[in-house]
Amino acid sequence: MTNPSKRKSPFTLHSRSTECAARLGEVHTLHGTFQTPIFMPVGTQATVKAVTPENLVELGAEIILANTYHLFLRPGHELIREMGGLHRFMNWDRPILTDSGGFQIFSLRKLAKITEEGASFKSHLDGSALFLSPEDAVAVQETLGSDIMMCLDTCIPYPADRQETLSATELTTRWAVRSREAQKETGQLLFGIVQGGMYPDLRALAAEQLIDIGFDGYAMGGLSVGEPHDLMMEITEHTAQLLPQDYPIYLMGVGTPADLVESVYRGVDMFDCVMPTRNARNGMLFTSRGRVVIKNSQYRSDPGPPDESCDCYTCRNYSRAYLRHLYMSREILAYHLNTIHNLHYFVGLMQEMRKAIADDSFLQFRKNFYALREEDKY
Amino acid sequence: MTNPSKRKSPFTLHSRSTECAARLGEVHTLHGTFQTPIFMPVGTQATVKAVTPENLVELGAEIILANTYHLFLRPGHELIREMGGLHRFMNWDRPILTDSGGFQIFSLRKLAKITEEGASFKSHLDGSALFLSPEDAVAVQETLGSDIMMCLDTCIPYPADRQETLSATELTTRWAVRSREAQKETGQLLFGIVQGGMYPDLRALAAEQLIDIGFDGYAMGGLSVGEPHDLMMEITEHTAQLLPQDYPIYLMGVGTPADLVESVYRGVDMFDCVMPTRNARNGMLFTSRGRVVIKNSQYRSDPGPPDESCDCYTCRNYSRAYLRHLYMSREILAYHLNTIHNLHYFVGLMQEMRKAIADDSFLQFRKNFYALREEDKY
Repeated sequence: MTNPSKRKSPFTLHSRSTECAARLGEVHTLHGTFQTPIFMPVGTQATVKAVTPENLVELGAEIILANTYHLFLRPGHELIREMGGLHRFMNWDRPILTDSGGFQIFSLRKLAKITEEGASFKSHLDGSALFLSPEDAVAVQETLGSDIMMCLDTCIPYPADRQETLSATELTTRWAVRSREAQKETGQLLFGIVQGGMYPDLRALAAEQLIDIGFDGYAMGGLSVGEPHDLMMEITEHTAQLLPQDYPIYLMGVGTPADLVESVYRGVDMFDCVMPTRNARNGMLFTSRGRVVIKNSQYRSDPGPPDESCDCYTCRNYSRAYLRHLYMSREILAYHLNTIHNLHYFVGLMQEMRKAIADDSFLQFRKNFYALREEDKY
Repeated sequence: MTNPSKRKSPFTLHSRSTECAARLGEVHTLHGTFQTPIFMPVGTQATVKAVTPENLVELGAEIILANTYHLFLRPGHELIREMGGLHRFMNWDRPILTDSGGFQIFSLRKLAKITEEGASFKSHLDGSALFLSPEDAVAVQETLGSDIMMCLDTCIPYPADRQETLSATELTTRWAVRSREAQKETGQLLFGIVQGGMYPDLRALAAEQLIDIGFDGYAMGGLSVGEPHDLMMEITEHTAQLLPQDYPIYLMGVGTPADLVESVYRGVDMFDCVMPTRNARNGMLFTSRGRVVIKNSQYRSDPGPPDESCDCYTCRNYSRAYLRHLYMSREILAYHLNTIHNLHYFVGLMQEMRKAIADDSFLQFRKNFYALREEDKY
């Protein structure tokens, strides 16, 4: 399917796997170009937790995500504009994608009320009553100055019945129209979000409507919300096929290393997830051989690095014994070193996948990926 | 006064102020030489909280301190030896001074019992009963592999009567004799600690006895324990004069920027204090014009760096507004950036003092130091 919109795509396709839907490309933004498939570290409050921008550059991050909802609440988008925009504020000069706030409002839905006009919600910080329309979400993101903006959407819980799913999906489409109309000519990209729940025909309907509107990229929302893993992959595969292949395809909020491999296999280009950063702070390290729970006593006097095959700053300089000591001692350096390692793992996994696609050997890569982690398919 | 011991001093004197007791020199250790006067960042649990060794090198730290008591309890000195020693364990190849545990046992004295033999105490981690003799303290520090070891001492509370002070001071001397005898020929330096409370004649007695034993350097303990500031300075000045001028003189656990200036003025060479790191985590930044409490609303939209005249990583890249946002949001990066700035300030202050001594303009430096901070003499 091709995109009927006149907007020039920011995506350049370099090559396709002959074995599966995996593809290699790049996306052009106001703050430079990033390679796809890509993983975007999450920097919710204008900081990727526990690391500096220099750490992110060193570990190979090309684009990060920041959360509109959180920055809207604190410190406020107008303040960030006064301080020179989000890039200057947080000292990051590479691309930034901002989500729309839709997922946070969904997560906090006991505090929210969705109407045709937009989302009324209470601040999780102080309970104050707030309102965000699709137009507001675009305006806030334009004020922040992110490179890729997301339309405000209504995320659908799992399970949800067909009628509920249809009505939320259609509302997302109407909001997408309003988002598109609200967008000013700033050079920032705007992505639409495909909802449709776990109903393949509603995913198709949503995709068709968004393509009609015409966006700079297409995201799949409402996945990884509690559904069985097989169902998530089925809907991902189905939806990715419905989207225009000359635009970037983004699977929001996913996932484990295996999820990334399986989704790239199915044609996804962009990912974000709190897993590498959050799990780092909980002492869980991702490695090529599976997960390492660093507090376990088996690592007490283990002189080896977290991952023998890793060349990140943490693995080059510290032992599992030291990382365990830091974690048991609740030292801040534990969060810093674990986060560097985990993000390096996620970013590096995408680099390996890009290389495999370039070599047209993605199936072999995928086979090796699972072979190495015999005991932990996570 | 000269030192009667035959041990070669690790201290080389470069120059003396003609205006006051300030002096410029260097101390030679197994892991290299550091310049004095020097400030040693505190790395209690084998990490200077919230920063990496590379951050410490970049901000100019030449030597750090680690706490024997804490490492003895967790992860254990034998484990650290197995992992290649403290330097390898924590990835720091410059000098390390370890305290003896005496001050921690003093701080936790409700859990401790001091006898002639040593200190019986309960672990603050799990309440288990432990014992540390002067010989143990040396052995633990030899096992850790620190460059400068401290004798186990009995710190004296303030206020304390003369008899209590005399008896604790004499016990410290007897422990110092045992420490010296226990020391193996590892090349590690061993410093004695002068107690004597707030009694000038007992400080003199303690100094005389320690000089008789003969150490590689002399520390003043039992200061900054609640006494009035003028009294602390009086005892510091008095005690520094009693110590051999061809050996390094170390004032333990001190202090504010003004304390450092006043103590260098009185002839002190070495300092350590948790203030720059701890206050950083509480949102207090030290600057050439006094203290900045970053959470204050006056910094909400302040685009300037913490200190206009500072060239640390934090000041080069971040605004007060951003640091306030991180602090209010309890982001780990707040602790990291604030700590880098505060340590850079303390380390830089010592560099400025060394330059002033080299130029023989210490009194002018001291005058400027106070003139800049008209409203905050801290």
